[in-house]
Amino acid sequence: MKAAIIGATGYGGSELIRLLYSHPNVTLQSFHSSSQHGQPVMASYPHMQGMIGDDLEDIDPERMAQDVDVVFIATPAGVSTELVPEFMKHDTKVIDVSGDFRLKDTDTYERWYHKTAPDQNYVNQAVYGLTEWLDTDIKGTQLLSNPGCYPTAALLGLAPLVKEKRIDPNSIIIDAKTGVSGAGRKVSAASHFTETNDNLKIYKVLEHQHTPEIEMMLDAWSETKTAITFSTHLIPMTRGIMTTIYADAPDGMTARELFDLYQESYKDTYFVRVRKQGEYPTTKDVYGSNFCDISLSYDERTNRIMIVSVIDNLVKGAAGQAVQNMNRMFGLEETAGLDTMPMYP
Amino acid sequence: MKAAIIGATGYGGSELIRLLYSHPNVTLQSFHSSSQHGQPVMASYPHMQGMIGDDLEDIDPERMAQDVDVVFIATPAGVSTELVPEFMKHDTKVIDVSGDFRLKDTDTYERWYHKTAPDQNYVNQAVYGLTEWLDTDIKGTQLLSNPGCYPTAALLGLAPLVKEKRIDPNSIIIDAKTGVSGAGRKVSAASHFTETNDNLKIYKVLEHQHTPEIEMMLDAWSETKTAITFSTHLIPMTRGIMTTIYADAPDGMTARELFDLYQESYKDTYFVRVRKQGEYPTTKDVYGSNFCDISLSYDERTNRIMIVSVIDNLVKGAAGQAVQNMNRMFGLEETAGLDTMPMYP
Amino acid sequence: MKAAIIGATGYGGSELIRLLYSHPNVTLQSFHSSSQHGQPVMASYPHMQGMIGDDLEDIDPERMAQDVDVVFIATPAGVSTELVPEFMKHDTKVIDVSGDFRLKDTDTYERWYHKTAPDQNYVNQAVYGLTEWLDTDIKGTQLLSNPGCYPTAALLGLAPLVKEKRIDPNSIIIDAKTGVSGAGRKVSAASHFTETNDNLKIYKVLEHQHTPEIEMMLDAWSETKTAITFSTHLIPMTRGIMTTIYADAPDGMTARELFDLYQESYKDTYFVRVRKQGEYPTTKDVYGSNFCDISLSYDERTNRIMIVSVIDNLVKGAAGQAVQNMNRMFGLEETAGLDTMPMYP
Amino acid sequence: MKAAIIGATGYGGSELIRLLYSHPNVTLQSFHSSSQHGQPVMASYPHMQGMIGDDLEDIDPERMAQDVDVVFIATPAGVSTELVPEFMKHDTKVIDVSGDFRLKDTDTYERWYHKTAPDQNYVNQAVYGLTEWLDTDIKGTQLLSNPGCYPTAALLGLAPLVKEKRIDPNSIIIDAKTGVSGAGRKVSAASHFTETNDNLKIYKVLEHQHTPEIEMMLDAWSETKTAITFSTHLIPMTRGIMTTIYADAPDGMTARELFDLYQESYKDTYFVRVRKQGEYPTTKDVYGSNFCDISLSYDERTNRIMIVSVIDNLVKGAAGQAVQNMNRMFGLEETAGLDTMPMYP
Repeated sequence: MKAAIIGATGYGGSELIRLLYSHPNVTLQSFHSSSQHGQPVMASYPHMQGMIGDDLEDIDPERMAQDVDVVFIATPAGVSTELVPEFMKHDTKVIDVSGDFRLKDTDTYERWYHKTAPDQNYVNQAVYGLTEWLDTDIKGTQLLSNPGCYPTAALLGLAPLVKEKRIDPNSIIIDAKTGVSGAGRKVSAASHFTETNDNLKIYKVLEHQHTPEIEMMLDAWSETKTAITFSTHLIPMTRGIMTTIYADAPDGMTARELFDLYQESYKDTYFVRVRKQGEYPTTKDVYGSNFCDISLSYDERTNRIMIVSVIDNLVKGAAGQAVQNMNRMFGLEETAGLDTMPMYP
Repeated sequence: MKAAIIGATGYGGSELIRLLYSHPNVTLQSFHSSSQHGQPVMASYPHMQGMIGDDLEDIDPERMAQDVDVVFIATPAGVSTELVPEFMKHDTKVIDVSGDFRLKDTDTYERWYHKTAPDQNYVNQAVYGLTEWLDTDIKGTQLLSNPGCYPTAALLGLAPLVKEKRIDPNSIIIDAKTGVSGAGRKVSAASHFTETNDNLKIYKVLEHQHTPEIEMMLDAWSETKTAITFSTHLIPMTRGIMTTIYADAPDGMTARELFDLYQESYKDTYFVRVRKQGEYPTTKDVYGSNFCDISLSYDERTNRIMIVSVIDNLVKGAAGQAVQNMNRMFGLEETAGLDTMPMYP
Repeated sequence: MKAAIIGATGYGGSELIRLLYSHPNVTLQSFHSSSQHGQPVMASYPHMQGMIGDDLEDIDPERMAQDVDVVFIATPAGVSTELVPEFMKHDTKVIDVSGDFRLKDTDTYERWYHKTAPDQNYVNQAVYGLTEWLDTDIKGTQLLSNPGCYPTAALLGLAPLVKEKRIDPNSIIIDAKTGVSGAGRKVSAASHFTETNDNLKIYKVLEHQHTPEIEMMLDAWSETKTAITFSTHLIPMTRGIMTTIYADAPDGMTARELFDLYQESYKDTYFVRVRKQGEYPTTKDVYGSNFCDISLSYDERTNRIMIVSVIDNLVKGAAGQAVQNMNRMFGLEETAGLDTMPMYP
Repeated sequence: MKAAIIGATGYGGSELIRLLYSHPNVTLQSFHSSSQHGQPVMASYPHMQGMIGDDLEDIDPERMAQDVDVVFIATPAGVSTELVPEFMKHDTKVIDVSGDFRLKDTDTYERWYHKTAPDQNYVNQAVYGLTEWLDTDIKGTQLLSNPGCYPTAALLGLAPLVKEKRIDPNSIIIDAKTGVSGAGRKVSAASHFTETNDNLKIYKVLEHQHTPEIEMMLDAWSETKTAITFSTHLIPMTRGIMTTIYADAPDGMTARELFDLYQESYKDTYFVRVRKQGEYPTTKDVYGSNFCDISLSYDERTNRIMIVSVIDNLVKGAAGQAVQNMNRMFGLEETAGLDTMPMYP
């Protein structure tokens, strides 16, 4: 099958190229950029010399509909709002790695994203692709909305407890930490090396647009209306997300029961690894891979649960999960192109 | 006045040397190490060439009592348990930067430190030196126990609310992050560069010995028995601590009221800086300095408070606060030797 | 085919596991450690959970000879001196990633390695596997000695000029820089995070054991006796080597001629990429991959040439080149298991 | 005495503020910025809260001439070309930390800086302030041109040999490495965290504007016309420069003689520390301080000398040397405000 990548000069796009380059069933057909078309992909990414010789193209949905089986959109927020309807008209399958089609409530989108929401009709069609917890077969899906990086880590960490209604979702506090690649390739003072190296920041306090995305899924799973605390920290490293999640424990919870619940929940999911009791993951344990590692603890002193989950924000938090979703949409092996070992150290 | 430093080859010791070298009222009299005496200080710390020409000496409390006005002990846990009684016998003032004399309850010490506790008699004499919140004049203090790095950041962040009994201390969750110098100079797999760089770890889950130290002070301030959640993360940076603290807000709290409470509480403390509303500190904002910067937020969606405090773990979290306490004990200007600008970037 | 890895708990060993796990023609048969046998591989490398379930085994050449087609030895210097003869007796093909069999002159080995040299007979049998410049077919090779990390980067950078006798090898100065993983997994003060982060060191001045390895090849290619300047710096990063090489230019050299010589030399080598004129590689351009990127400049002001070459020290500088050599020894595609895109960023 | 700082929002400016804040003889009178005047200094540098309450002012040479004794200019290249004549007219002493007045040959300036050169008249008046090797008393100097960061490290490393005419300056190769703060505070792709972290780059090959600055001084000292090789690398760290310098040794040189020459040359200079034989400096050894540490080696195998020098690029390489020069210009103790210990770790 053939794939096109829109937004090929960003980190999400380049990670898609990296993963699909080694995918046994996919040919990288074309690379698209609204601003840099005409230039070689390699002008943005010299590390691809000898591997990708193509030039960046402009975005022509009609032509692309004929040329490819799937289009990945990895642009900043607001762009796929415009592009997706074009591809839908031509019956092209789209996997949207930007955030535009995640929030089902368009008012919420506009409040947190400070942008005009996409057409509700397309929002309704979009399937939210948290792959391990999809409740539908997505073989017929036309528009898949790939989850955000933080929501992926947080929701995989919370799903077993929340879906089983074992905890009060309003007691959830998510202290999240990310590497700087999450901020993208656009230069800014916040991600200037000298301002970031050997430094630790908290950012977007009370304002992070992934808050309602997490709450949307918690609402659905718990069948209640939830408000959580979600804070985000910038770590002086390139890749990786860790979410440290706190919640009130249900009555009578034990550490063993907690562990068993997660082991059972994830026993058939290749990419979610529940770590053995007493062992905690580091972000390097999943570096460059599609794994999400999860550890659990129960503190009887405070009767609180702690869940620690880690992902590579560019893989399971973006391009990797997008490929995993593509594999499902096209009936391929779920691990195709993704069964590589984390890079350590 | 003259000072001696025990444990001069560790990071706490070298930071004391750095600060006291520039202190207008102090002469660095002698440097002591149990394992490396006879060697030059410079063999451990070549960066001191041209500044410190002395050799390391062994530890002789009787002679030191005659030579110096104050002894700083910056050794691993367990050592000052043995040394302090010797110095007490000779009426030498001691500032203990190790953790041995912090916990008033020796059972608690033994449970969390896995070591034999010091003599209760000396524990009782030790004044816990969280400088900004000392409730006694320490001019006559013989034994000052300098707070731990995490407790300093957490307690300065919590004191105004807890002392005013505005929050339920049992609702407190402290998500703490530290640079690697907090682990000391002793080599270990955990602080091997390749295992730490570009990586993020959670460690000592439910086992960190600073937990009871924080709770001891919260108990005293709130006049209740408290159990808090305290988790610690290792950040790939050299210096700096950030504590992100969550707690249930009292009824009717507003962001403005919260800010005003902290501004009022810290209006006369040079080293605690309440940052303006909506601005959040980074650890680099206090790098190399004795400042503790604090920001606050109130989330009406969840009715939770968040407090963010940052310090340099080796300065306000160790050597700097020790010098600040020395200044108080000897009637010097509180800022003497400490009024230097953070190093940025 | 089946492979065994000796020294599986070090970084060279774990990188071999990572690469061979994805190799289409290889089964990882067994993992060996002299000190930790009996323990799971995963106890050393939790990131392999779900991928490698095996336990570490002791080293039994007789049994291994029956079980596997090739043995990789990735131990510290001095170990394969002992092991290789055992495997040779059993006709097992060995790829030695340690340095023991590289230097043909055993006196030189003993002078630079401060260890007893291996048996000259086996040293003579060993083929030095700088893959792109092998002068023999290695399909029948029993003992392949994999080049060192620095020599790989330096020699690939120098080969075209030296083999063509265009420069005086005695004018060569190699200023080399490496990431910290080159120092291995054994903890030491030199690779303690706090001593290395945000710091830059020069080390092993005039004493680096890769000096005679580089000179050995330069001697062979230039048919003269060479003494070069080679200095090594420790960069606060995990992976990557850059060698900045200076040499006197031959009379009449131009930048274009220099570039053409390299393009021609490497036009058929997939893993050596000559970068276009005026573009210089960064170590991230080859991160995690088997590429060696090379750039050239000629300075008419000084009549000197500069060659810049970069590799990932653990891949092209160790495990990757070992796999590349294995592919050649067993008649596989040279790129099998190695045709993956560098990880960027 | 009173000082004004122009370009207070850049890293050179903020480092001047840090150093002068603790200077016993200086009052920081005013802070100037062409683009941000009217805003508080603290808006650029929140770490100065409680220390610097002033607003940034515009640049009014006439008024400043009345208010202050010395003006520091720490702007990008090209700005002080315009400003200096204004201050000269008002007889204000100027210390120019930008590069505009360093090169005596204005053609050379224009060729390497790609900017219009300053007025030759003022260029002639400017004293090049490599403090340890000033050949004049600068008490009467009106315009001091502060050396560049790389030239400071390189020239302090080379001066004893070149001034004594012991080496052929045309044999000099300087392989220089810098932390990222050298690139300034302006954001760019080159200093974006994710492009720089865990990465190593060579940049401005054959084009670095510090090349002619180094050659100008070598020419003067050696009384010949020199062309050197000078290459620059970007290290993933915030502060620090190391220059690794290679040169042909004179006949009969020994390691001991080399060491003695440097010890003798620098025996009376507080800020240049010749490290003992066999010990090599790291950039952290001088972090945050005005020291330049130098080590030497002689390789009898190649008959080459290697000189290693390190500085903090923002201190001895910029603001610190500027303050040292100010101290000399105003007859203060040379170490005033600068005698602080490097920050380690």
